[in-house]
Amino acid sequence: MEDSKKNFKSQKIYNRAIKVLTGGVSRNTIYRKPHPSYVEKVNGSYITDVDGNTRIDFANNMASLIHGHAHPEIINAVKKQLDKGTAYTMGSEIEVRFAELLNERNSSFEKIRFMNSGTEAVMTMIKAARAYTGKQKIAKAEGTYHGTYDYAEISQTSSPKNWGDINNPNSVELVNGTPDGVKDDVIIFPYNNLEKTINILNKHANNIACVLIDPVPHRVGLIPGNKNYIHGLYKWTRENNVILAFDEVVTFRANYAGAQQNYDIDPDLTALGKIIGGGFPIGALAGTSDIMKMLDPRESPLKHPHSGTFSANPISTTAGYTAMKLYNQKSVENLNQLTSIAKKQIEEAISLSNIPASITGIGSMFRIHLSKNKPTTYREAYQDMATKKTIDKLLNYLFEEENIIMINTCSCMFSTTITQKEVDRLSEALYNGFKLIKPVL
Amino acid sequence: MEDSKKNFKSQKIYNRAIKVLTGGVSRNTIYRKPHPSYVEKVNGSYITDVDGNTRIDFANNMASLIHGHAHPEIINAVKKQLDKGTAYTMGSEIEVRFAELLNERNSSFEKIRFMNSGTEAVMTMIKAARAYTGKQKIAKAEGTYHGTYDYAEISQTSSPKNWGDINNPNSVELVNGTPDGVKDDVIIFPYNNLEKTINILNKHANNIACVLIDPVPHRVGLIPGNKNYIHGLYKWTRENNVILAFDEVVTFRANYAGAQQNYDIDPDLTALGKIIGGGFPIGALAGTSDIMKMLDPRESPLKHPHSGTFSANPISTTAGYTAMKLYNQKSVENLNQLTSIAKKQIEEAISLSNIPASITGIGSMFRIHLSKNKPTTYREAYQDMATKKTIDKLLNYLFEEENIIMINTCSCMFSTTITQKEVDRLSEALYNGFKLIKPVL
Repeated sequence: MEDSKKNFKSQKIYNRAIKVLTGGVSRNTIYRKPHPSYVEKVNGSYITDVDGNTRIDFANNMASLIHGHAHPEIINAVKKQLDKGTAYTMGSEIEVRFAELLNERNSSFEKIRFMNSGTEAVMTMIKAARAYTGKQKIAKAEGTYHGTYDYAEISQTSSPKNWGDINNPNSVELVNGTPDGVKDDVIIFPYNNLEKTINILNKHANNIACVLIDPVPHRVGLIPGNKNYIHGLYKWTRENNVILAFDEVVTFRANYAGAQQNYDIDPDLTALGKIIGGGFPIGALAGTSDIMKMLDPRESPLKHPHSGTFSANPISTTAGYTAMKLYNQKSVENLNQLTSIAKKQIEEAISLSNIPASITGIGSMFRIHLSKNKPTTYREAYQDMATKKTIDKLLNYLFEEENIIMINTCSCMFSTTITQKEVDRLSEALYNGFKLIKPVL
Repeated sequence: MEDSKKNFKSQKIYNRAIKVLTGGVSRNTIYRKPHPSYVEKVNGSYITDVDGNTRIDFANNMASLIHGHAHPEIINAVKKQLDKGTAYTMGSEIEVRFAELLNERNSSFEKIRFMNSGTEAVMTMIKAARAYTGKQKIAKAEGTYHGTYDYAEISQTSSPKNWGDINNPNSVELVNGTPDGVKDDVIIFPYNNLEKTINILNKHANNIACVLIDPVPHRVGLIPGNKNYIHGLYKWTRENNVILAFDEVVTFRANYAGAQQNYDIDPDLTALGKIIGGGFPIGALAGTSDIMKMLDPRESPLKHPHSGTFSANPISTTAGYTAMKLYNQKSVENLNQLTSIAKKQIEEAISLSNIPASITGIGSMFRIHLSKNKPTTYREAYQDMATKKTIDKLLNYLFEEENIIMINTCSCMFSTTITQKEVDRLSEALYNGFKLIKPVL
C-alpha cells in the first residue's frame, strides 16, 4: 500500500515526531498507518503534502473550515490585526462586533461568551447549567461526542460488550480511571427514541441540570434528531426545570442559525466552535440572558466565575467574524445545494456499483454507511471490526490512490470553496472505491 | 475617578458589549469598573486604547506574552505560515520542531502533546494520571488556580468562612452546583506546610492519582514552594505510586527549564501554556514516555483517547516555536536580572513611603502584598475586603493616572521588551501610589 517514495519526507518527519510527541501526534484524528502526512501548502480545497502530493480536502479540519484553507479575506483580516496585537489583558472591539453578528443570527442567542475550543464550550455549558439549576447530574445520548470534558465523554464509544440494556444504557467510561462520581452523574439515553429517553429522564427528573444534545450527532451516525424527538425533549425539559443544552460545535454550519433552525424551538444554551473560528482556535457558549448571567462578573455572589487567557483573543475573533460574515444566507444555501448534488451523485455511484450503502446527514455534512438502509440509532450505526476495516480500506484507497481526504468515519464536511469539479472527482473516486471493497461486503 | 472624555470610546463599545456578551466580557480578568478599556494598537510593552491613552503593560495578557506585544519575529513567522494554512486534518512539521525544542529544555519532558489552553493541559494531566494509576482522587493545594476544569478548581477561593481546619481543609466548590463527587475526589492540603500535607495525603494514599502542584502559585501569593516541601512531595509520591503533576502554565517562564529547575527533581508530568504560545492559544502536557503512552493512539487498548480540533495548529506552534527560540538562556537571565532590579527599586519605594508592604515571586514574576512581612501561606496571604479595596484603589490609580497596567492581584509579569526606562516609571508610579493609599493602611 505504502509507496516509500511517495511519502518519503512525511515518513522522515514522523520518525522524528515519535521521539518527542507521544505517538508522534497531538491529535489522534491526524494519525494514519504507517504515519500521518505533513502539509507543505494549501489552496482553497486543495492541500499539498511535503512530498508534493496534492489532494482535495473534504474533511476541512474536522468540519472547522467553512471556507476551505487560507481564504484570502480571512487571511488578510488576520494579517491586519497581527500588528495590533494578538492578546491583551484588555478588550478589543472585534469581540463585541463578532458577538453582535452571531447573536443576530439566532433568536436563542441572547448573550454569548467566547472561549478557546469546543471542549471548553461544552464544559462551560454543563457547569453553567449546574450553576443555574443547582442540580448535579446531566443526561446525554449514547455514542455522542462532545469534546474531552469527562462528563461529556461518558458512553462516547459504548460497544455491544458494555452498553447494556437499551431501556437503561450503562454509563461507560471513555478514559481509564474516570471517577465513579462522573459515571454516576451522567445519565445515558438512546438517541432518537423518545419513549425510552423520557422513561429514563423521568427516573432522575429532580437531579438533572441539563439534557445535552447534538441535533445531528456525527459519531452516532450523522443521523438528524427526529422533530418529535427534539420537541419531546424540549417539552420534558420545560416541565421539569431542566436546561436544554445543544451542542452545535459541528452542526452550526447546517443552516444560517444552526441545525436548531430545523426544529422551531429555542434551546436554553448552545455550545459553538469549529467554523466560528475561521480556522483559528475558538469555542463559545450562547443562551438566554437569564442563564448566561451565571457568568456575569458584575453579579454578586458570582455563581460561575470563569476566565481564560486566550478567550476572545482578537485573532480568533477577527478570523471568525470574517468567516461568519462571508457565510451568509446565500452562501449557506449554495453550499447546502452543492452538497445535495454530491449526495445524489454518490447515491448513483452506490447504485451503479451495487453495494449495500446509504448516506445520512444534513446541510453540508454527510456520512456514508456500509448498510443498505440508513441507520436510525447509534446501535444500528455501530460498526463492528470487519466494517471498520472495510471503511479503512476505502479511505486509504481514496487518500493514496485518488488523492481525496475524507473524515475517518467515512464522512465529508464541505466548504464553500468546493465546486462541481471537486464533487465529480469525489463521486468518481468513491465509485472506484466501492468497486474495490465490493468483494468483502 | 472616571474622566468621561478620557474613556469615551471604550464606554461606547462597552455599552454595546453588555447587550451581547454576558457582563460585556468573555474573560472576567479584563473587566474593570465602570467598564473595560478596548485596545487600538500595541508596540512592544506599550498598549494604546481606542481613546488614545498609551500605557505600559506589566500584565502581558496574564503572563502569556514573554516578548511583549506583536514581536516582529513572531508576527513575521506567523504571516508566512498564514498562507500555508491555519489548521488541517494532517500534521505539520512545525509541531515536531516545536516539540523537539521544548523537550530539549527539560529532562522531565520525554514526550509532549499540544492542546489549546492551560485549562485543557491541566485537565488532560489529571485524566492521564488517573488513566495511568487507575486511581480516582487528586490532591491539590488550597488557594491555587489551575484553570477551569472543576476538579482543578476546588478550593481556589477558599475563605475564612469556609476553609475549615488547617489540618484538614475543606473541599470548597468554586462554581455553584459542582457535583459532590468532584468535591469528594479532591483532597485539599495547605501549601508549603510539609507535615500537615503529608498527614493529609497519608489518609488517602491508596486512592490518589496525582498530587497537583504549582511551584510558585500566583493566587496563593506568588510564594515559591520551599525546597524541602517540593522534595517532600516528590519523596511521598515515589513511595506511594502517585504521579507528581506540576502546573507550570504560568511559571515556566521562571527559568530556561521552568520553575522546576530550582528543585533538582523531575515531576512525572508538567502542564504548560501561556508563554509557549507566543501570544496564541496553546496548552501542552509533557512528561515521562511511560505515562504519556496513555495518550498514544498506537496503543491497544488506548487508555486515554484524546483529540482536539485546533490542537497543535501550525499558527500557535509557529508563534510558540519562534517565541521560545528567542527566549533562550541569555534572554531568560537578562529578563530575570531586570526584574530583580525592579523589585529592589520597588522595595526602596516601599521603604521611602514607609508603608507596610512586601514583595514575593521569582524570575520575571512578582507580587506586592500590603503586609510588612512576606506572607508564607495562602491563609496568611488571603486579602480581606478592606485590603482588596485598597489594592483596587492602588491599581486604578496606576491605570488611570500613571498609565501603568498591572495584574489585578497587584502583580507584574515582565516581558523581554521592558527596559530600565519602564522599570523606573513603574517604581516611580508605585511610589506615588503607595503615598496615595498610605492613609488607609
